[in-house]
Formats: sequence, structure tokens, C-alpha cells
Amino acid sequence: MTIDAPDVLSNIRVVMVNTTHPGNIGSAARAMKTMGLSQLVLVNPKIFPSEEADWLASGAVDILQNARVVASLEEAIADCGLVIGASARQRRIPWPVIDPRQCGELSVREALNHPVALVFGREAMGLRNEELTQCHYHVCIPGNPEYSVLNVAMAIQLLCYEVRMTALAQTATENKSEAMPIIFSEWDEPLATPEEMHHFQQHFAEVLEKLEVLDKKNPRQILTRVKRFFARVRPDKTELNFLRGVLTAVQKKINGLT
Amino acid sequence: MTIDAPDVLSNIRVVMVNTTHPGNIGSAARAMKTMGLSQLVLVNPKIFPSEEADWLASGAVDILQNARVVASLEEAIADCGLVIGASARQRRIPWPVIDPRQCGELSVREALNHPVALVFGREAMGLRNEELTQCHYHVCIPGNPEYSVLNVAMAIQLLCYEVRMTALAQTATENKSEAMPIIFSEWDEPLATPEEMHHFQQHFAEVLEKLEVLDKKNPRQILTRVKRFFARVRPDKTELNFLRGVLTAVQKKINGLT
Repeated sequence: MTIDAPDVLSNIRVVMVNTTHPGNIGSAARAMKTMGLSQLVLVNPKIFPSEEADWLASGAVDILQNARVVASLEEAIADCGLVIGASARQRRIPWPVIDPRQCGELSVREALNHPVALVFGREAMGLRNEELTQCHYHVCIPGNPEYSVLNVAMAIQLLCYEVRMTALAQTATENKSEAMPIIFSEWDEPLATPEEMHHFQQHFAEVLEKLEVLDKKNPRQILTRVKRFFARVRPDKTELNFLRGVLTAVQKKINGLT
Repeated sequence: MTIDAPDVLSNIRVVMVNTTHPGNIGSAARAMKTMGLSQLVLVNPKIFPSEEADWLASGAVDILQNARVVASLEEAIADCGLVIGASARQRRIPWPVIDPRQCGELSVREALNHPVALVFGREAMGLRNEELTQCHYHVCIPGNPEYSVLNVAMAIQLLCYEVRMTALAQTATENKSEAMPIIFSEWDEPLATPEEMHHFQQHFAEVLEKLEVLDKKNPRQILTRVKRFFARVRPDKTELNFLRGVLTAVQKKINGLT
């Protein structure tokens, strides 16, 4: 199936329950928008709308303007086929717990079929037990055991990021099956060919000899290191041409001497 | 090898360059601590220490108290074997770009052997080009193309999260062999430090000038490419010493001429 990332993301909402600080609502809106999510639902926010929220939303004020304010969690998630609640604490009755990556995968997969809700609790105490029992899964961010309490907008940033990463990965695997190593997939110049590299290394060796920097007893040792060096860097054509130019300039200076 | 997550994390530092809003420094400290990172270095912060930073750091004030304040990026990264800079924009000369997950993997792997720096720029304009050329990699968070600007503390939360996820995964599967593109953890020589690289590049630039190979109209363009070249190859100390020797030999020949 072809998945269009933006479409999937518009089917995943963020629900903030009883948020105390309006700044967190604004930061959450910004976090969502950077990751391509747009549906924000506020359950009984303490202060909303507010200037502070608008200020912290920065370029994401539209998310605040379109936010839906409701009176209960039930209302916020009524039409959702999947509800995932963020929870830091381990509860007395363990619930199915997933990590943020699994949360991203699950959300994107199910958002193809029905609306998905990611639910976040109060700054001071998170979600209540009766709210957590309305969730299909709890998502737990595996933080530092000595200090694991993320700011709520930070947690939203992080879960939205995992949602986006899954959506992008699925879109990407549609089109390409080959995995390029990180570096050279979008380089601005074609890489030098092995033949060009070979000529360059000969040229370099000649100049090194003239410069008398090779260890006479063991010239190979250094030349092997030089080769490894240039194999590792994988110069592009422009870089190699430049280096050839430098070598030629050095040769001219040396020849000017004799 | 057995990896102890906390140990690895203490070898990964967060560097914030010219931060304007003290609140972001506090939020960053909290974000770091939730993910188990503790080393914060501030390059010329506008306001520090500050009550606002302490307030937003919440339970992570210790990170602020232990933060190191320095005058330059060079100083902040001088002893680091791996430097990764956060960058939102695509630059004119593309650098090796990795995503947050690769950033986490690379950082954890290399932190076993040498200090690693994750560098974050100013709120309004990020890192400058001359700062980005001091990085081995740029990490780019694959945000919404229509609005991709994360708050700096959010970006720190996210990258620290990926670092932690890798550290936890490696602890969980100690003996698993992974395929990472470029591995410097098992190199035969210690890598050159950023400071050594800096001196080498100055030396190289001097020689290039003497050789008259720089484009007079646009010398910077070539020097940026030279920096990118050497950032990519990440020379070890032996290689760098050898290259310094070559440069000195060239200078002697040139001076013999005049």
C-alpha cells in the first residue's frame, strides 16, 4: 500500500489532559508541527488560549487556533481506534507497555485505518489511573532511573519524532530498496574513480620522493598509510583535481630549484 | 566488550553555542539529565547563570552547576575525537549528514574511546559555517519541510534520547555485531584532536598560498572544501604528523628558492 506521510500524520492526534502551564501547550504545538502533526486536543486546560502559549508556539500558532478544547478524555478519544497514554511510573496493575519507537510504529500502522490518540497527562502527576485504563497501551520513555521526568512538551516532541521517523521510513521503502551508507548519497560531486585515485597516488609518491620525506629504510610503510588515508576519504573529482593541482605546483617549485 | 551505559554517556558532552535565552539552557540541562547525560559546555552564553535557567532545569540544577563555560567552540571540543553539529539547513558545500539515530549510534560507539561532542547553535540562526566545518558530521532532524525549526532544547532532548536508546540497546545485546559504516573504535592509532586538526589546516592554508593554487577571487570556497575533506577523513595522529612533515618539506623547498 502506498502511504503518504502527511495523510497518516493527520490521523494521529495529541491529547493534553488538564495542562497547567500554557507555555507547555505552546511548546507542544511547535513540537507537533516540526514533526508534521497537526491535530491537538486539550482536555480542560487551566489557561487557554493565552499569549504565552502563542509566544512559545512560534510558527505553529495555527495548531493552537485549530486546537479542540473538550471537557473530558472520553470526548477527546471517542472516535479513536487506538489510544496510547504516556506514563512514567510503573502502575500497580501492569498494562501493556511499549517504548517510543514501538509507539511510532503502532501509531503509523493503525492511522491508516482509524484515528489514533497519543495522550499526555498533567505536569505534576501525569495521567490518573482511570485515564490510563482508557488506553490500549502505555508508552514509557526509558529515561534515567535517577531522574526520569521529562517536561510534557519534550515528551510530545519525542513521541511525535518517532511517529514521523516511522512514517518517513515507510514512505522511503516504497521507493528504494537499497541502503546507501550515510555519507555519499547526496554528494555534490561525483566520486573519483579507482583509476584516477591510482594516478593520484603515483603522483603523490613521486612528489614525496622529491621532498625526501619517505623513510629510506621503509618507504612502503608510509605509502600504505597514504593509500589507506585516501581510500578512507574517498575524494570526489573536484577534490582530487585540486590535490593534483597542488602536487603539480609543488613539482614546479622544486624544478625551479635545480 | 561490555558497555556500561552510564560510563559511555559521561563521555558524550552537549555544547551550546551563544545561547540567547537562559531558559533554553535550563531546559537543555533537564533534557540531558532525563537521558542520563551530564556534561554541558556553554560557549559564550548570553546570560548564565540565571534564575530562569535554574527554574527550567527543575531537578537537573546539578548539571548547570557543573556546566563549563568557555570562550570558543575550539576550546569546547579541543579534546574530542568525534564532533557532530546540529544543522537544519542544507549548506552550499554538503557535509556528511547523519540522522538522529545514526548520531546516537556513532556517538555511543566512539564514546568508548574518546570524548564526543554534540554541538548546538544559536536559537535564531544555528551554527555558523566556520563552526560547522569544525564538525565531522552534521546531524539533521528530518522535520516537516514546511516548518522544521525545533527549539534548541527540544533538539537536545531528541538527540540525547537517541544516544540513550543506543546505549541501552548495546547494553542489552552486548555481543551483537552490527554493521556501522565508519568505525574508528578499533583504529590502530589515536585520532588527531580538533586542535591538532586546526593547526594542520592553518599550516596547509599557508602552503597553498605560497604555492599560489588558491583562486584569488574565491579562496574561501576552496578552503571550505579542504576543511570538509579533512573532517571526513578524520586523520589519526600518525597520518597528521606525516602530512605536517610533508608541508614543512614543501616550505623548505620553497624557501630555498628565494
